[in-house]
This record gives sequence, C-alpha cells and structure tokens, in this order.
Amino acid sequence: MKTPGYLQVYTGNGKGKTTAALGLAIRAAGRGLTVYFGQFMKGSFYGEQKILGDIPEITLVQFGSETCIRREDVTDTHIEQARTGLEQIRKILQSREHDLVILDEVNVAVWFGLLTVEEVLTTLDHRPENVELVLTGRYAPDAFIDRADLVTEMREIKHYYSRGIPARDGIER
Amino acid sequence: MKTPGYLQVYTGNGKGKTTAALGLAIRAAGRGLTVYFGQFMKGSFYGEQKILGDIPEITLVQFGSETCIRREDVTDTHIEQARTGLEQIRKILQSREHDLVILDEVNVAVWFGLLTVEEVLTTLDHRPENVELVLTGRYAPDAFIDRADLVTEMREIKHYYSRGIPARDGIER
Repeated sequence: MKTPGYLQVYTGNGKGKTTAALGLAIRAAGRGLTVYFGQFMKGSFYGEQKILGDIPEITLVQFGSETCIRREDVTDTHIEQARTGLEQIRKILQSREHDLVILDEVNVAVWFGLLTVEEVLTTLDHRPENVELVLTGRYAPDAFIDRADLVTEMREIKHYYSRGIPARDGIER
Repeated sequence: MKTPGYLQVYTGNGKGKTTAALGLAIRAAGRGLTVYFGQFMKGSFYGEQKILGDIPEITLVQFGSETCIRREDVTDTHIEQARTGLEQIRKILQSREHDLVILDEVNVAVWFGLLTVEEVLTTLDHRPENVELVLTGRYAPDAFIDRADLVTEMREIKHYYSRGIPARDGIER
C-alpha cells in the first residue's frame, strides 16, 4: 500500500462487525494486498473459514473458544489463549508481511478482562506505519476509539432474534 | 436453507454496509449456499470482484455506474439501468436458484429516485419464502425498515475522510 495505514474500529450491538471485517479482507485480497485475520474468543467453524482458506492472500487464525458467555465464565485458559493471540499479532506486525491485520472480537476480549487496554495498545503502537489495522467487537473501550482513525458503531434497530429465531448456519455463523 | 429467509437492511452513514454484505456472501458460500450479489449504481472495479469471481457459489453483477453523485445528475440511463437491475433481481428470485440475494446500494437508488419504494417492495414480496434478502445503502426508506426482520444502522463515529485522505484501493474500493 502506498498510503499510510489507519486504525479502524467496528463496534456496537448490531450485526455486521465481523462480516464487515470479512468484506474488507476480501476487498484487500482482490487488490493483491495480504491479510492476517486473527479471531479472538472463537474456535469453531464459521462459513467464512472455508472460503478464506482458499485465498492465498488471506491467513485466518483463531485464538480461543466460544465458551466465554458471561464474565464469570473466564478461566486461566481463556486468558492464556487471548495473550497467545496478541503475542502472535505482535509477531505478525513485526514481520511486515501483511498489509491489513484484523483483530476480530478483540474489544470483547478486553471487556471480559482477557487482555488489558494497555497491552493491546502497546502491541498496536509497534505496527509498521503502512499496516491497516481493524478492531472489532462490542464494547470497544474508549481508549481504542480515541486512538482510532475511523470508528463505526453498528446499531441494532430491529432484530429477529427477539422473535425467538436461533442463529442459522450460513447466515449468522 | 432449512429456516425461512429474512429481510436484512444495512443503512446509515458509517462504513461497513457493503463490506458486511460481502462478508455475509462469503459466510453463506462457505456453507454451500448460493448467493446472488447485485450492485446498484456501481459499474467499476472494486477489489471484491476479483475474489468473488473465483467462488462458484457467488454471482456478482453490477447494474449501473458511479456517475450519480447528486440528485441533479440523474439521467434516463441511470433510471433504465436500475430498472433493468431490479427486473433481473425479480427473475433471480423466481428462479429459486439462490439462497441469499443481496441488493447492494438499492436504498440509495430509491433515494435518488431511480426506483420507487413500491416497485422494490413488490419485487421482494415475490421471493420464495426460504430466500434471505439483504438491502444496503444510506437513506433506507422507512417502508424498508418497517418490512425488515433485521436492521442495522452503521453510524459514523469518526472518519479519517474529514482529515482529507482520499479513498484508497484495497481499503475503500
């Protein structure tokens, strides 16, 4: 990329945060940029993995599992997984091999106390200046929003979950 | 899909509407669902086209051009292109060959007067019941929001455009 990289944040309680990051990854890969897509707090199959796995410009890695539902669920294993993920992101940034680096659900990992705001910001501060960074997840800490160049809040206006329909393969996951 | 299809709307002035639809397309394709991605008011190369063109489950078609910037720019050609696009969507829905059908920027096409709310809703009303529909674009008309099962508003909280940085290949397009 010829332009400097920015820090983008996608947050809020509405749908579309991870899918927007997926779309960014596809768009960047289509221009020949390389993408590292790290997913915090995820460790199971989502429809996107099959497609992204076939795109040579994109590396998708999961750091964790879906077993943190409430803050009381947090175990040392969850913290260890998130820290290992952040350490991996640090190495990826230092390698300078990727133009776009996505930290999917990192906001939630901070909210759950798996990572601190400071350790995430310290990691991000060490990025090469032309790397575009994307942070997703509800509950983005104010410090991420202050630091970001672009922040979008996905606001839920209406949701069919309220009608009792469960998440569907291929649509929500 | 075994579950009924719903009508999703992504609107608002923030980033992430088209990219969220791209992510949905990727996720659905990864589950073996078939996707028709129709783009109103677009007629030039975006990074996503290269990748989506290689995915057999996804068909991406553009209906138009980027030459409508203000309402005064609208010509008969723009109207004709949008109507042809909507007619194509109608046929696609009737063919029952796609599980997910995306009308990218259709909200904006209505806002510019290229299509009426009524003709879009009539087209959508004829969909097979298991097709998931996604409408994107700023300025979603109230009638679309009323009809939708899920609505997300992408709100711009902060944007680097305000610092004078132009759209970048691979990130914004």
